[in-house]
Amino acid sequence: MASILVLHGPNLNRLGSREPGVYGAATLEQINQHLRERASQRGHHLLSLQSNAEHELIERIHAAGDEAIDFIIINPAAFTHTSVAIRDALLAVSIPFIEVHLSNVYKREPFRHHSYFSDVAEGVICGLGAQGYELALQAAIEKIEQH
Amino acid sequence: MASILVLHGPNLNRLGSREPGVYGAATLEQINQHLRERASQRGHHLLSLQSNAEHELIERIHAAGDEAIDFIIINPAAFTHTSVAIRDALLAVSIPFIEVHLSNVYKREPFRHHSYFSDVAEGVICGLGAQGYELALQAAIEKIEQH
Amino acid sequence: MASILVLHGPNLNRLGSREPGVYGAATLEQINQHLRERASQRGHHLLSLQSNAEHELIERIHAAGDEAIDFIIINPAAFTHTSVAIRDALLAVSIPFIEVHLSNVYKREPFRHHSYFSDVAEGVICGLGAQGYELALQAAIEKIEQH
Amino acid sequence: MASILVLHGPNLNRLGSREPGVYGAATLEQINQHLRERASQRGHHLLSLQSNAEHELIERIHAAGDEAIDFIIINPAAFTHTSVAIRDALLAVSIPFIEVHLSNVYKREPFRHHSYFSDVAEGVICGLGAQGYELALQAAIEKIEQH
Amino acid sequence: MASILVLHGPNLNRLGSREPGVYGAATLEQINQHLRERASQRGHHLLSLQSNAEHELIERIHAAGDEAIDFIIINPAAFTHTSVAIRDALLAVSIPFIEVHLSNVYKREPFRHHSYFSDVAEGVICGLGAQGYELALQAAIEKIEQH
Amino acid sequence: MASILVLHGPNLNRLGSREPGVYGAATLEQINQHLRERASQRGHHLLSLQSNAEHELIERIHAAGDEAIDFIIINPAAFTHTSVAIRDALLAVSIPFIEVHLSNVYKREPFRHHSYFSDVAEGVICGLGAQGYELALQAAIEKIEQH
Amino acid sequence: MASILVLHGPNLNRLGSREPGVYGAATLEQINQHLRERASQRGHHLLSLQSNAEHELIERIHAAGDEAIDFIIINPAAFTHTSVAIRDALLAVSIPFIEVHLSNVYKREPFRHHSYFSDVAEGVICGLGAQGYELALQAAIEKIEQH
Amino acid sequence: MASILVLHGPNLNRLGSREPGVYGAATLEQINQHLRERASQRGHHLLSLQSNAEHELIERIHAAGDEAIDFIIINPAAFTHTSVAIRDALLAVSIPFIEVHLSNVYKREPFRHHSYFSDVAEGVICGLGAQGYELALQAAIEKIEQH
Amino acid sequence: MASILVLHGPNLNRLGSREPGVYGAATLEQINQHLRERASQRGHHLLSLQSNAEHELIERIHAAGDEAIDFIIINPAAFTHTSVAIRDALLAVSIPFIEVHLSNVYKREPFRHHSYFSDVAEGVICGLGAQGYELALQAAIEKIEQH
Amino acid sequence: MASILVLHGPNLNRLGSREPGVYGAATLEQINQHLRERASQRGHHLLSLQSNAEHELIERIHAAGDEAIDFIIINPAAFTHTSVAIRDALLAVSIPFIEVHLSNVYKREPFRHHSYFSDVAEGVICGLGAQGYELALQAAIEKIEQH
Amino acid sequence: MASILVLHGPNLNRLGSREPGVYGAATLEQINQHLRERASQRGHHLLSLQSNAEHELIERIHAAGDEAIDFIIINPAAFTHTSVAIRDALLAVSIPFIEVHLSNVYKREPFRHHSYFSDVAEGVICGLGAQGYELALQAAIEKIEQH
Amino acid sequence: MASILVLHGPNLNRLGSREPGVYGAATLEQINQHLRERASQRGHHLLSLQSNAEHELIERIHAAGDEAIDFIIINPAAFTHTSVAIRDALLAVSIPFIEVHLSNVYKREPFRHHSYFSDVAEGVICGLGAQGYELALQAAIEKIEQH
Repeated sequence: MASILVLHGPNLNRLGSREPGVYGAATLEQINQHLRERASQRGHHLLSLQSNAEHELIERIHAAGDEAIDFIIINPAAFTHTSVAIRDALLAVSIPFIEVHLSNVYKREPFRHHSYFSDVAEGVICGLGAQGYELALQAAIEKIEQH
Repeated sequence: MASILVLHGPNLNRLGSREPGVYGAATLEQINQHLRERASQRGHHLLSLQSNAEHELIERIHAAGDEAIDFIIINPAAFTHTSVAIRDALLAVSIPFIEVHLSNVYKREPFRHHSYFSDVAEGVICGLGAQGYELALQAAIEKIEQH
Repeated sequence: MASILVLHGPNLNRLGSREPGVYGAATLEQINQHLRERASQRGHHLLSLQSNAEHELIERIHAAGDEAIDFIIINPAAFTHTSVAIRDALLAVSIPFIEVHLSNVYKREPFRHHSYFSDVAEGVICGLGAQGYELALQAAIEKIEQH
Repeated sequence: MASILVLHGPNLNRLGSREPGVYGAATLEQINQHLRERASQRGHHLLSLQSNAEHELIERIHAAGDEAIDFIIINPAAFTHTSVAIRDALLAVSIPFIEVHLSNVYKREPFRHHSYFSDVAEGVICGLGAQGYELALQAAIEKIEQH
Repeated sequence: MASILVLHGPNLNRLGSREPGVYGAATLEQINQHLRERASQRGHHLLSLQSNAEHELIERIHAAGDEAIDFIIINPAAFTHTSVAIRDALLAVSIPFIEVHLSNVYKREPFRHHSYFSDVAEGVICGLGAQGYELALQAAIEKIEQH
Repeated sequence: MASILVLHGPNLNRLGSREPGVYGAATLEQINQHLRERASQRGHHLLSLQSNAEHELIERIHAAGDEAIDFIIINPAAFTHTSVAIRDALLAVSIPFIEVHLSNVYKREPFRHHSYFSDVAEGVICGLGAQGYELALQAAIEKIEQH
Repeated sequence: MASILVLHGPNLNRLGSREPGVYGAATLEQINQHLRERASQRGHHLLSLQSNAEHELIERIHAAGDEAIDFIIINPAAFTHTSVAIRDALLAVSIPFIEVHLSNVYKREPFRHHSYFSDVAEGVICGLGAQGYELALQAAIEKIEQH
Repeated sequence: MASILVLHGPNLNRLGSREPGVYGAATLEQINQHLRERASQRGHHLLSLQSNAEHELIERIHAAGDEAIDFIIINPAAFTHTSVAIRDALLAVSIPFIEVHLSNVYKREPFRHHSYFSDVAEGVICGLGAQGYELALQAAIEKIEQH
Repeated sequence: MASILVLHGPNLNRLGSREPGVYGAATLEQINQHLRERASQRGHHLLSLQSNAEHELIERIHAAGDEAIDFIIINPAAFTHTSVAIRDALLAVSIPFIEVHLSNVYKREPFRHHSYFSDVAEGVICGLGAQGYELALQAAIEKIEQH
Repeated sequence: MASILVLHGPNLNRLGSREPGVYGAATLEQINQHLRERASQRGHHLLSLQSNAEHELIERIHAAGDEAIDFIIINPAAFTHTSVAIRDALLAVSIPFIEVHLSNVYKREPFRHHSYFSDVAEGVICGLGAQGYELALQAAIEKIEQH
Repeated sequence: MASILVLHGPNLNRLGSREPGVYGAATLEQINQHLRERASQRGHHLLSLQSNAEHELIERIHAAGDEAIDFIIINPAAFTHTSVAIRDALLAVSIPFIEVHLSNVYKREPFRHHSYFSDVAEGVICGLGAQGYELALQAAIEKIEQH
Repeated sequence: MASILVLHGPNLNRLGSREPGVYGAATLEQINQHLRERASQRGHHLLSLQSNAEHELIERIHAAGDEAIDFIIINPAAFTHTSVAIRDALLAVSIPFIEVHLSNVYKREPFRHHSYFSDVAEGVICGLGAQGYELALQAAIEKIEQH
């Protein structure tokens, strides 16, 4: 049984209420609940954290290093484009991770086309809404089980 | 009666003591007090927050969305140039806002010429010192009353 | 009693008829009339000129230097992005000025994001429509009276 | 019967005498005469103006807005690369226009490869000499008659 | 029952033999076979084409427009970075598509960081090997069934 | 009697069915038929080819060199921005050509603003729809007859 | 006896009064008078024009073409960096010219480092104050007399 | 006796455990202990703080301004490249500081080559591991004692 | 005995007839014949292919991988600057290759200064005409024989 | 009586023999002789050095600092674009200098448009051939005599 | 006992006389003397060379390779920004080195922000005046003794 | 009988000892000896010089101009990327030359991708080790004999 950590960056606590036409009607709690169930069906343990604070995400990643988390799924949201510190936290703990974006960042402002995470991620999934998390979970489990 | 929120970014708690020749001798509390009185004279309610923490500003904006704040006046200070997350918070709550800078950012380092806020703001006022807040308040009230 | 000069750049003679949804329904003459009254209420004298010709604006600024005009409020319109010559005229006469834009230039074409005036202006107000002139007038009067 | 305005930018009054190997031997008056006849044969009215002064071109465009001119054919010459003000005048009057260049600007200095007009024009014709005006006139008439 | 087309760009016929450490040991035929079965289990029809020739991919997309294909999954491989023509073919037929890359392009040469497809795709999956196709298929089916 | 070759690049075989609001309702065959008639009325011979394959266009241009074609009218479509090879074919045969674009490329994505053809073309016509071909034909005939 | 035309661009009518520490205490009329005398001593005729209007400079250059002026000395001032139209006028009349700047433009704002004149000038003299004109006159006379 | 503050940015709490081959085996507490002793031997007082939170570093700097700290040694870690707010805090309190990096940032990703601190620092030491702090301490003491 | 494959990119079938002053009077067949003889004299086997079609070159390279070709000499011509797909084919088969250009690409348009091949080639020879192939053949043979 | 040093950079020892059509037929010794006479007529002393070695020029400048040379005229030739060390030598001795170029660098390769000297020079003269030195000498003497 | 070589680039022979406010009053000989003593106290041997000639520095580095020098401390001064040849000499001899700058290069002209040495150095110390050499010596000795 | 000069830039005197895995085990003297023999076999005379000093290379090129050297083969090594002065020396003497690099510069640091020599060379050979010189010699002889 592996442990998987799902991290959600700033403003994602507003999911469901925030522009549902764009981001879907599901709340973050519904998404997390669904992911926990999926992981559980596959015999794995899934934890999650949303934070608007960069340092909380950094410290959750540090803790993951100590807890021997096997895989991280992260939607860094706005921090995608600005946080070298979270990048460094992920590098420091050496836990493989997949980067997820709900919307297709390439359809949006040019500053959203650059990510501080992609070149150190296992892979990237973007534009597929809440389903993106679920696909990332499948990929994570496949990678874990292949080891 | 409308509610207006004034947000002050990092280091603005040092106003008055910090380079008074540049930023004026008024403390942030004096500025807030003055703005509250002006708003009150026009029959409106004015709240304010200064924070050095990006997440506190984000969460205050989220709360503003829930409290039905009518207008935001924000001086993002150093976050002007680095915070996609506060930009996203403002977009998420869809509250109109005016961006204010005490100093004329165009007289300063090149990295201060770019703002993550201006293209989604109602308008921008810069270089007019503490009076800039007051002018923004007038503009905000006019916009609120026109609706 | 101070003298304040308001300068309007090219195409602003079309205000009122030109895209009223964007620029408001007030004509330039109504705006000037309103500003003259406001200045007069504060005991000051306000003059204005609109021109589509760069040299007329330059020469009006030169004359302002000879007439000891105390402050200039200028909306350079399209010349914002192209006229080094008007910038040089303002520098030559050393009269402090505020730059005003009716629309929010940061929501528009990238070439409108650069101004030849902002780094030598006292301050900049943009995106607040015709009210921008009035706010600039208040700021100008405050600066004049502080001396 | 429609009205079509042909505008010629700076230095085009030198046509015929100026580098005839490059620009052809026809004078501007011969070109205008030929265009007037062509328009007349198709039952339309054609006016023209050449000016070396940006403000005269701006004001002719403003007047065109008041006279209900149906279409503009403009060779902005050197102003192609420098005049935001003429661009704004064309946007202000909302008259459709075609941009014409006698020479092939892409064979010339890099600064001639950028135009402030092309992205708001109906179309662009370049490199075909004086015939470019005639082709633009045909296109203009076709567009007018299709309405 | 929907029809889904899977397109593979140049050099992907070498999968299995080409750097199996990087791209996995599965041949393209094995991947296609697996995808066909998955689609079939969900009640859909899946077709595929690999080509090293840009025009064959363009013409297959045109045919897809005529055959009313519901969704395209495309790994444009090297054409990702160079083919405006395939982008235009996809825009011409207006069939929604997901872009898939076997390897994480952000770990590779800078010229691989730009795609002519991402900003017009539904979403992008990269770096997850052959599983990327399967995840794209799930996403495609979900999108088809939601309509 | 001169011979004129009209070349149409990728995706233009979809004209008529593809976004008729943008590109017009005429099919490519109707356009070619119309051009043949116009050329014939002027006593010239007009041939045409559409291809989605870069090499077919290159080889048609080589053949044109052998057949002593007098003039080429080319709409390179997506190849405008990517094909050095077709540029080189045109240079190799030294046949003068005019570049035509149906849509106004300057209103579209930035990558469409650069052409590998314009600086070696006689002239460029863009944004005038199917009429652009006809205008190019007139210009070609005029140039041929002037020799 | 040759004819030499000296052209002064915008704001140079303010010389003497404008920042004498930087530009010297001589007025433009004194400079012109001095140059006329120097030319006269060498047996040549010197004319001059200062204008704040781009079109007046263009038209003076056109007239120079008709009057067979032998050489032009031009200080384009702010137009150095913005006027393609004056550049084109100089090219149209094919009169050799030297570009002069009173101040050292390389010590000033970066936008002053680019000139639309230097690459088509005979030579450039900058940073040597009013003496720069005199040196240019000597160079012009030497060039004229060498022919 | 002077007071010296040592600030450590995000992820530095992981020192010792994080890639000891790169960063050395010493923990942050061992480094701080060693620096305190060295300062004490020279008769000075040394304080230190590590934080993953930008606002804690900002507020510690503000407090340093109130406590009359004489010198700051800062390793901003990932915030080197992203935090204008900490830069502004250091400018606001006007305490001289030296910037230290454990690793040689010039051997790493290009985004690590730019610092928001270097141009306002007294000096920069990079690539010399934990010894870099000690060298900075010596330099700080020398500067303090020279006053 | 080794096998060497010589690949010629688009438009090189026109050699001899195309600008002989620039490219020499030898036809491609004469060059190939000469290279075959030289290889044969050294006891090796030389094959060649010219194609204007990117996919034919890709597929010839794939076949070379299957045929155990020892070395490739490639003049990618226009594909030098545009074909990531041929680069990828060469990487996929892992056959060492030398890149040859007949003309000196550094004397030509700036877009010809970048190659998608050079950084993965053994070496590059340019500007030495048809002799460049022969020099590349010598270098290839030396490398083969050194193994 | 003042002392003036004239420095000539690399390859200028070839003057007269090197492209006389471009650089004139005078040898460097003739130029130096002429300048010495001119200086002598004005009662000043002129020394000169040509060197192809950067360090010789640096050391001559150092010596000039020790000898109390009043003014330097320097044609850095190719070192204009590459030598920070000569720039630093000139700054170290604080002797005012004028930069001279024989040819008009703005008509030449783009890398010749940047100078490491111009922003710290008194002034720049370029494109006026050997006369440029003489004009620089006049300007130098005028500046010396004004002190 | 190790051997350490200290290299000083161009213009550093002027230390003490050159802008003592910026660079300190110590002469280079005093600095070298001080460093020799420090090294000697630690049981090591220190040699030094200053040169204004790039080739002398290169050849001293080559000799260091032959003499088995253990460590180099280099202040390349102006050559920091221009000498690939010294970089290559250091790479050729594979002796570890620390780069030192007296002044803080980040407070100076932008061209001083790039170094050809930093990415191949052990570390960099800048802005700490002559003490920077001493700190570098300590770091060098620590590194030597750790081996 | 022609004379050919081979020039080797800085650090090439270290060949053989310097990274033999990369540059081969041959010393420079062995390479020169081999080239002299090859030239002699073809009836020509070959001279060579290696220097770490830019001015020695410049002066050797000047002397070559006086000695009527027929062809130069130059490996400018690090000076490839920095020496405008050697470029100018080659242009001054107008002797045709081939540029040679031992290693493949395109596999190395980006600053090695630009050469100040390639656009004025006859041709360029890179990445083929010491054999590159021999191939350049063959090409040189062929060019000499063709005249």
